[in-house]
Amino acid sequence: MKEKAVVLVSGGMDSCVAAAVANQEFTPCFLHINYGQRTEKKELEMFHKLADFYDVEEKLIISFEHLNKIGGSALTDNNIDVPTGLSENGVPVTYVPFRNANLLSAAVSWAEVINAKKIFIGAVAEDSAGYPDCRKEFYDAFNQVIKTGTKLGDIEIVTPIIDLNKTEIVKLGNKLNAPFEYTWSCYVNNDKACGKCDSCLRRLNAFKNAGMTDPIPYE
Amino acid sequence: MKEKAVVLVSGGMDSCVAAAVANQEFTPCFLHINYGQRTEKKELEMFHKLADFYDVEEKLIISFEHLNKIGGSALTDNNIDVPTGLSENGVPVTYVPFRNANLLSAAVSWAEVINAKKIFIGAVAEDSAGYPDCRKEFYDAFNQVIKTGTKLGDIEIVTPIIDLNKTEIVKLGNKLNAPFEYTWSCYVNNDKACGKCDSCLRRLNAFKNAGMTDPIPYE
Repeated sequence: MKEKAVVLVSGGMDSCVAAAVANQEFTPCFLHINYGQRTEKKELEMFHKLADFYDVEEKLIISFEHLNKIGGSALTDNNIDVPTGLSENGVPVTYVPFRNANLLSAAVSWAEVINAKKIFIGAVAEDSAGYPDCRKEFYDAFNQVIKTGTKLGDIEIVTPIIDLNKTEIVKLGNKLNAPFEYTWSCYVNNDKACGKCDSCLRRLNAFKNAGMTDPIPYE
Repeated sequence: MKEKAVVLVSGGMDSCVAAAVANQEFTPCFLHINYGQRTEKKELEMFHKLADFYDVEEKLIISFEHLNKIGGSALTDNNIDVPTGLSENGVPVTYVPFRNANLLSAAVSWAEVINAKKIFIGAVAEDSAGYPDCRKEFYDAFNQVIKTGTKLGDIEIVTPIIDLNKTEIVKLGNKLNAPFEYTWSCYVNNDKACGKCDSCLRRLNAFKNAGMTDPIPYE
């Protein structure tokens, strides 16, 4: 029997491809974390469709009220507008303070209990200019925290697409038959993607550069 | 004006002394995290009394449903009994998988938003034989995660009592006039402490060895 791996599945494109990679070698266990982001409804719908696609038996959905309560990001705080256009240098207002550490900590807690030894996350270093918790050094440091802070110290974060750009991610997903129709990237809407926010623009560029058509509906 | 420090205040004795230390140099901001532990009611009561005692203006109380949902510990899972007597070698059943990483991650998120540069936690290495996430190496590794994964990388975890034993903690608290009457350690009850669980026994021994009387009520 294959070993279990926890996969952090946001419902976005990157985590879909991370799931496709995990599925090659492991029995994927899907973890979805709602942290009060605006487009949660659509993301959760995608999570379930992806889980069905990969015949996932162990699923966990948890809600973080605290990231919303703490605020400080356009993704969780309705008083901060989501900007349109590609992001400038510096940390963008969509950065959710230390979000990925919160997600990973919960993932490790679950992995310890269900006896999974790997945790897959679709972090991408291309975003690292903006999001500090998408950098490779962050994951290396986090693996050290797991080594020192868990019962057996034998769980490891895996970042299979961290060195890829968005175009390469689309190509890899395509090669692995990842179902992009069950993914959502838009920061703004739940129904049709806006096509204008930073996340939509990156996604559309990636499909274009990969010579593919994005299967999700745009406004 | 003094710099802000987030203090993780469980309502227990150790975090009370950590708060007393933080209060000497910083403006303490109190963070309490309910993770579905059995004695939450009493712990939260103590949190508010301690916050009043230290005139704390910024308080945040958050609930983690996920540690309870994930289970795997006698503290969060009613199907696992809390043992009596001092704990044996190995990781005890009261270990909540990767709990402290979850707590610290939330604390760092809050610190980033309120602009606090220190996070005080009353971790004690004496417990480290049992709890992997109470070891000094764990906190060193976590500080590295903060450096790599936050906006400015300038927040630091402080563990002021990590090298003390329980008796020294009682003595230090006494010296700093920490209000031990507003603390709770028992794993079992909410009304009077049981005096029999591992946590009560350690606490009672510590007061005895320090030549002091524990001011809280026992059965």
